[in-house]
Amino acid sequence: MANKIKRIAVDMDGVLADVFEQFLDWDEKEHGVRQLREDLLGRSELEAFKQARKHVYTEKFFRSLKVMQDSQEVLERIHRHFDLYIVSAATEFPQSLAEKQEWLLEHFPFIGWEKIVFCGSKQIISADIMIDDHFKNLDHFKGELSLLYTQPHNALADAGRHRRVENWKEIEQILFP
Amino acid sequence: MANKIKRIAVDMDGVLADVFEQFLDWDEKEHGVRQLREDLLGRSELEAFKQARKHVYTEKFFRSLKVMQDSQEVLERIHRHFDLYIVSAATEFPQSLAEKQEWLLEHFPFIGWEKIVFCGSKQIISADIMIDDHFKNLDHFKGELSLLYTQPHNALADAGRHRRVENWKEIEQILFP
Repeated sequence: MANKIKRIAVDMDGVLADVFEQFLDWDEKEHGVRQLREDLLGRSELEAFKQARKHVYTEKFFRSLKVMQDSQEVLERIHRHFDLYIVSAATEFPQSLAEKQEWLLEHFPFIGWEKIVFCGSKQIISADIMIDDHFKNLDHFKGELSLLYTQPHNALADAGRHRRVENWKEIEQILFP
Repeated sequence: MANKIKRIAVDMDGVLADVFEQFLDWDEKEHGVRQLREDLLGRSELEAFKQARKHVYTEKFFRSLKVMQDSQEVLERIHRHFDLYIVSAATEFPQSLAEKQEWLLEHFPFIGWEKIVFCGSKQIISADIMIDDHFKNLDHFKGELSLLYTQPHNALADAGRHRRVENWKEIEQILFP
């Protein structure tokens, strides 16, 4: 009961925001054919979508992302019991910064500006738990629990020392056993 | 010689960027009288400048800040010898994020997007050395050395466990003894 409240760092793209679905949609709009998720497993988004680099620099790309299923309810519960930060590797796309913050304010209004981090490398982030879909972020993490959120690009990889999660209901079960 | 390279987190406003001078300038433009630095010691910028809150939300406020004297040369030297991150509490002003990154790119082009952090609370930041002008950021810092950069708002305070520095030449002497 006297436990120190734990700090948890939650990624945005591919964890809270369904960036893969957006790539599928925008790719379909551009090429007239919708790719199948099953065909893209194990491929980075830059490999899977020819125009990915153009799209992430396009206005409204990040502002109009769909919210990952169940993430709002579960994150609000996390917010009540943990020291919750949203940590997004966003400085690669400076034009996205204001859009990302607006998006968070709309869909996760309980998260104040104090708890939002936009960065490049996440090596400088100190937390007890990290939820992310990229090994490059999780592999440097020194906290006690790192959750790999399944996305097509990481679906074929061995999670290694990280624990793989498929959805937000599963995260809830882990954090509130 | 086998020392691990140390990570250093450097603040922007009041450390790299002369936000106080900008407040003086914009305040003078608005009221026709230039306040004196000596009259504002120990007062927060919100107390010192009636329109501060309006100004920080005004376009170009952050984009046009002057660079702190000697900071470019010293920071480039730090960049070559430390794991340097720029860490700015900027999410309180979302419209400033892109401006701040543009400003960094212009004045400190050697800093890549990977090493830029825009956050709210800096409690999540893990580093060995922190340079900041605000106690609220330094007081939570768990690294080995915290440097309090003198600005009018902190000029009358006891630095406590932090080491006060007056300018970038002094920082250089401390980091490269």
